[in-house]
Amino acid sequence: MKNVKFNEKGLIPAILQDSNTKEVLMVAYMNQESLEMTLRSGKATFWSRSRQELWVKGETSGNYQLVEEIRIDCDNDTLLVMVKPLGPACHTGKKSCFYRKLDGQILDNKEDGDSYNYFLEKAVFL
Amino acid sequence: MKNVKFNEKGLIPAILQDSNTKEVLMVAYMNQESLEMTLRSGKATFWSRSRQELWVKGETSGNYQLVEEIRIDCDNDTLLVMVKPLGPACHTGKKSCFYRKLDGQILDNKEDGDSYNYFLEKAVFL
Repeated sequence: MKNVKFNEKGLIPAILQDSNTKEVLMVAYMNQESLEMTLRSGKATFWSRSRQELWVKGETSGNYQLVEEIRIDCDNDTLLVMVKPLGPACHTGKKSCFYRKLDGQILDNKEDGDSYNYFLEKAVFL
Repeated sequence: MKNVKFNEKGLIPAILQDSNTKEVLMVAYMNQESLEMTLRSGKATFWSRSRQELWVKGETSGNYQLVEEIRIDCDNDTLLVMVKPLGPACHTGKKSCFYRKLDGQILDNKEDGDSYNYFLEKAVFL
């Protein structure tokens, strides 16, 4: 924790990755307080740059992102947070915020929505 | 491309993810020029904040990160770059820059080094 290099605004980017599917879900920013809260509660917690307040991801929607492991990169200025998502990470209802290509094309991600149904469907029809 | 939201320094964070293993490899920053170079050359290219210059990843080491797809998040301020790595992304020789937990513990990543040997070993001994 003492090695964490916060930027000039006191923030560090945190990538959320699904520990099971390895899908990258979202990127948000933590300050020291939100990182400490994350460690204490086990729920990914950020500093909202737009609202300028602590932001427990899922507090409103119920889509908490439960933290399984936190990694830090070689120069200590980015976090990789391995999570078990209790619901979509994106406010659009998509599992991941990265659901579009750079040119705007929407990716057809079969794993969105109910993954149980998806695997059931695969098991039955393939 | 016109939707890309660069920050007040003209930069956008770009996450590199191995398109095959889904491992998150590194995070660096692109300005508009380096993003255009990335799109033209197919090699992940950044703006080095420490050296204040364009940085073709792998130019010195040969460990180019070949771009297969670029995704953008819902608020257009982070890129997810799916790559085929020609070598380790980290300057330490590790495949990924995220090889440590927050507490400093080094992760034992069997996929570092020669992944062919790793899969061969699995096939033979498991």
